[in-house]
Amino acid sequence: MVAQSGGPTVAINASLLGIYEKAKQIGVKKVYGACFGVEGLIEGKIVDLDEVFAGFRRNLLMQTPACFLGSCRKRLPLVNDDSLIYDKILNIFKKLDVGAFFYIGGNDSMETVAKMSAYVKSVGCEISIVGVPKTIDNDLFGTDHCPGFGSAAKFVATTFLELERDCSVYCFPAITIVEIMGRDAGWLTAAAALARLNGMQGPNLIYCCEQSFRLDDFFADLNGEIKNKKKAFVLVAVSEGLQILEKSKGFEGKKGWFDEFGHAKNSGVAKFLEIAVKKEFGCKVRSIELSLPQRCCAHLASGVDLQESRQVGAYAVDLAQEGLNGVMATIKRVSNEPYRIEFGFVEALKIAGKVKQMSFEMLSGRNDVSKKAVDYLKPLIQGEVLIERKNGLPLYAQLNEATYIDLE
Amino acid sequence: MVAQSGGPTVAINASLLGIYEKAKQIGVKKVYGACFGVEGLIEGKIVDLDEVFAGFRRNLLMQTPACFLGSCRKRLPLVNDDSLIYDKILNIFKKLDVGAFFYIGGNDSMETVAKMSAYVKSVGCEISIVGVPKTIDNDLFGTDHCPGFGSAAKFVATTFLELERDCSVYCFPAITIVEIMGRDAGWLTAAAALARLNGMQGPNLIYCCEQSFRLDDFFADLNGEIKNKKKAFVLVAVSEGLQILEKSKGFEGKKGWFDEFGHAKNSGVAKFLEIAVKKEFGCKVRSIELSLPQRCCAHLASGVDLQESRQVGAYAVDLAQEGLNGVMATIKRVSNEPYRIEFGFVEALKIAGKVKQMSFEMLSGRNDVSKKAVDYLKPLIQGEVLIERKNGLPLYAQLNEATYIDLE
Repeated sequence: MVAQSGGPTVAINASLLGIYEKAKQIGVKKVYGACFGVEGLIEGKIVDLDEVFAGFRRNLLMQTPACFLGSCRKRLPLVNDDSLIYDKILNIFKKLDVGAFFYIGGNDSMETVAKMSAYVKSVGCEISIVGVPKTIDNDLFGTDHCPGFGSAAKFVATTFLELERDCSVYCFPAITIVEIMGRDAGWLTAAAALARLNGMQGPNLIYCCEQSFRLDDFFADLNGEIKNKKKAFVLVAVSEGLQILEKSKGFEGKKGWFDEFGHAKNSGVAKFLEIAVKKEFGCKVRSIELSLPQRCCAHLASGVDLQESRQVGAYAVDLAQEGLNGVMATIKRVSNEPYRIEFGFVEALKIAGKVKQMSFEMLSGRNDVSKKAVDYLKPLIQGEVLIERKNGLPLYAQLNEATYIDLE
Repeated sequence: MVAQSGGPTVAINASLLGIYEKAKQIGVKKVYGACFGVEGLIEGKIVDLDEVFAGFRRNLLMQTPACFLGSCRKRLPLVNDDSLIYDKILNIFKKLDVGAFFYIGGNDSMETVAKMSAYVKSVGCEISIVGVPKTIDNDLFGTDHCPGFGSAAKFVATTFLELERDCSVYCFPAITIVEIMGRDAGWLTAAAALARLNGMQGPNLIYCCEQSFRLDDFFADLNGEIKNKKKAFVLVAVSEGLQILEKSKGFEGKKGWFDEFGHAKNSGVAKFLEIAVKKEFGCKVRSIELSLPQRCCAHLASGVDLQESRQVGAYAVDLAQEGLNGVMATIKRVSNEPYRIEFGFVEALKIAGKVKQMSFEMLSGRNDVSKKAVDYLKPLIQGEVLIERKNGLPLYAQLNEATYIDLE
């Protein structure tokens, strides 16, 4: 049985496909899908994937973003707090003769993998619970990088290339601040630097949430850019999770800007900075939140990302076949050039709920990333995906009117 | 001589290429580019395009977004108010033996075409001033549609397909409000409806700025969607230029929401609606501004759009050769299926500064567009562009360290 969890990515369905195909390849009789993650699993929202995929062009899954089976944000309780939920899940597993459960998700989902695994072991049950990584944030421990991240990084870099063309057309000074997803880690923000690869200047300033950020420093950095540059525009990349450290220039820190009415609570850090910079500099300032498109931009997927996501799904099936339980499949980088990887695994408990931030050597000063970061990121955005289209638009797969199997 | 003006699009460089190549084809000895529109022209920022393109892969222009020659927002004064500017331009034209001037732009730029044309005629000069249309807003009179629009429409439709996948993954109710460019016309917002072509539900509600919009109606529409739908999410497309007609529910109209500190002035209509809906419904609400990417998304260009943009540029050269002056090249639609067009022209004076909104029959009720709109829009997003890439990213052209020619 397989389920998907957490925020959508472009590659999570490639992992689903990898799991399904590998399972059929090794002769597994039935593959089930649990819809809406563990939440749907508990409610018995199970589909027979062999039936779903009969007469279904399942290769479309490779190019379809988000979660084909739906997702959830549910955290399982501690077994001691509510063992009934675990009993419920176990009953469903037994009823359907489930030998392995694959959970594709991020660090919260790996907590679920660890808890479920501990439970089935504690009751002497031999069901393998195996995690498959995915997150555009790339912040999972134990794996060199996360499926889904490469495609999001390719979108960010491509968008920066295009924004640079757009911002360069006028003569008057203008500052554009682009907010990139990543609450706890700046990996995706760092990917903006890849826009420099093809002879463009790329973002002038990059602020990852691992870097100390002060408004006064930021203003000084902008001043430096405006004075030293031939071109009139300044393009800035900032992490969604940027922490503004000081109270200064009339702004009482990021939190102080949020008011009771709820305006600013709905705005991100780029909008906050836009207002601060406009007040300080008086020139044209624009903020852009890349928002959801960066995690569902399947039309711009990285070929490397999709291929690895499919393979890591298949590898998770290998792990289950070897009897491993409570682990997450991982990607290990063998070399950057030529780019080579191997697959491995790690105890889910070791990575559950943890966040892997960018290391000091991936950063450069307070407003850029290092060559090491670029070398690390570059292989992950390679390869184009030939999207199947109709009517000038991509064809995406969806689970239509799912018929949940009868568990009675 | 050719110049570009107004906001960037994906196709404006295709028109530049079309003009250049046609001019060379008919034996024009020199083709100049005026950088930064008429503003740069007046300042003598002229490049020799034959030199710029020597050893330059000018086919990259077909896939490069925004304005290769730069742009401006400058409006020329009335001749009676400041004829010196016109003399300055005429002197440059005479010095360089310019026989025709092509201005690629929107409705403000066509005002410039009309004024310049009237001036050269008034002084008995035989220089052809010809406009070439472009705008993602598609709001130019006299032409069936505008170069640049089709690519933006393809981006909007594709993004809606992807957002629908993204928004459909959770079980809990959520409303997503997407703001699309178009201050005065809803054409680009209407393109969101194309997301329905490939079997997806598409946006549940579409509000173009031509439709009357009241918050109470909007809340009622949302309630209807939430009650009648199988899925938990509601996806809404709104025009940037939407006018909110009533004061209601504690919001004193859109303007009342803007405060002195400047918060809301920086936010768009989608953010305003997000806050209003959150207050009314209490569920998860998100607003997304598609922002600049919708006008510079070259990686997702429409093949039809780029081809037509190149052709309309070449056709403008034909018009100049026929001695026409003060006109804009246009596109006339011959049929929808099969899609066929012809080129034509219109007096620039007749369209200058005017806005073509969507007609009543293109709309459907207060919250959707009609089949007629879809039939009109569909041909414009057809055709894929095989983008040349390096390092996993598109290769875009830029005018590096332009050497302006010496006018002394």
